[in-house]
Amino acid sequence: MDIIEQLTDVLESRRRADPGESYVASLYARGLNRILEKVGEEATEVILAARDLEAAGPTPAQPNADGKPADQALIDEVADLWFHSLVMLVHLRQSPQAVLDALGARFGISGHEEKRSRGQ
Amino acid sequence: MDIIEQLTDVLESRRRADPGESYVASLYARGLNRILEKVGEEATEVILAARDLEAAGPTPAQPNADGKPADQALIDEVADLWFHSLVMLVHLRQSPQAVLDALGARFGISGHEEKRSRGQ
Amino acid sequence: MDIIEQLTDVLESRRRADPGESYVASLYARGLNRILEKVGEEATEVILAARDLEAAGPTPAQPNADGKPADQALIDEVADLWFHSLVMLVHLRQSPQAVLDALGARFGISGHEEKRSRGQ
Amino acid sequence: MDIIEQLTDVLESRRRADPGESYVASLYARGLNRILEKVGEEATEVILAARDLEAAGPTPAQPNADGKPADQALIDEVADLWFHSLVMLVHLRQSPQAVLDALGARFGISGHEEKRSRGQ
Repeated sequence: MDIIEQLTDVLESRRRADPGESYVASLYARGLNRILEKVGEEATEVILAARDLEAAGPTPAQPNADGKPADQALIDEVADLWFHSLVMLVHLRQSPQAVLDALGARFGISGHEEKRSRGQ
Repeated sequence: MDIIEQLTDVLESRRRADPGESYVASLYARGLNRILEKVGEEATEVILAARDLEAAGPTPAQPNADGKPADQALIDEVADLWFHSLVMLVHLRQSPQAVLDALGARFGISGHEEKRSRGQ
Repeated sequence: MDIIEQLTDVLESRRRADPGESYVASLYARGLNRILEKVGEEATEVILAARDLEAAGPTPAQPNADGKPADQALIDEVADLWFHSLVMLVHLRQSPQAVLDALGARFGISGHEEKRSRGQ
Repeated sequence: MDIIEQLTDVLESRRRADPGESYVASLYARGLNRILEKVGEEATEVILAARDLEAAGPTPAQPNADGKPADQALIDEVADLWFHSLVMLVHLRQSPQAVLDALGARFGISGHEEKRSRGQ
């Protein structure tokens, strides 16, 4: 199983978790608008981190305001954006694998075929 | 190779493509702001598609304004958002695999270890 | 009448305009999602223009990629954002004046009182 | 003076305020990225509030999750979006009046002329 699949399993299991003990369960409990606010926030943070990285020029490893290198800051913000997209999909009973399949289909890469071939 | 890896290879190869013949090459040529505008646009479209799916209630398969079922529309918008995030990462010489590793690390799932174990 | 009031009158009158001849009428005809996509796009463009202006440093009047000074580019993007917010309010039968009143109320400035006092 | 002008004066005065005692001064102190994050957040909240109002249908006055009617919630979110746009402009030494002038110019409405005529 790749990381998206494993993460999907974790997010599915959080449906049965206590909102007081799990961040993901607390998002599910607060509902779709709260999850979508997080998607919007993280998209803005990705945009700002990308501009910060470009501005850092040839020294991307220099720390930003949070003491983190600009390249690592961008990676972390994209991870946050994808993570909250996944939470949204699971909240709405949709399959993250279907997103990967849609991406693959645009480039003649089939996730299902790839998995089948991997098993052979 | 999984879909993100294969797609990364495609996006890397588009660096050498003609902007007049490749959408991705045309984004690289227009520069970071144009790529970030697309990230922002797609985030908004994900948010609207998620609300459309919720509003569709128990009939998510009914077509939206574009004649597409609300569930498929959301999947396609998330694919667009992730796709343009990947274009941004490659444009800025960052590794999409690092995003997956960051996601995995938060949940005790290591992409590198997973790949090693797969080869055994 | 101030500019927001005059613009509200113009936007109200566009309800009866031909979508083929008026940009605003074409937005009303395409519906709420299209208007909200524009609000999201313009918010992203404001963010990028603000970073461009900051990056321009002591020479904000130097032209950006579109040949426009960075300070004027930001002003125009904020105008676009406010404009599409106004289109959204009128589409939803809400009053732009109520937004100004809400802003004023937070700072002890009353739009209605201000207008009364102006007439005295 | 109209509300935007009065609010601009308030925001200018906050440059000399203690960040520990004024929300606006705390935004200035945290810098442009923090202000732009707020612009992005409020744009997302406007989009969600607009969809909530549309979903409320003929009963827009029914309270939302925060116990606020959907129409008032939208007005408040637009006020938040415009407010943080104004904070951004003042932080970057730009004039909110220039935004109103740009809006007016698109529709043959001149703010400066309007003010002159008001004084006559």
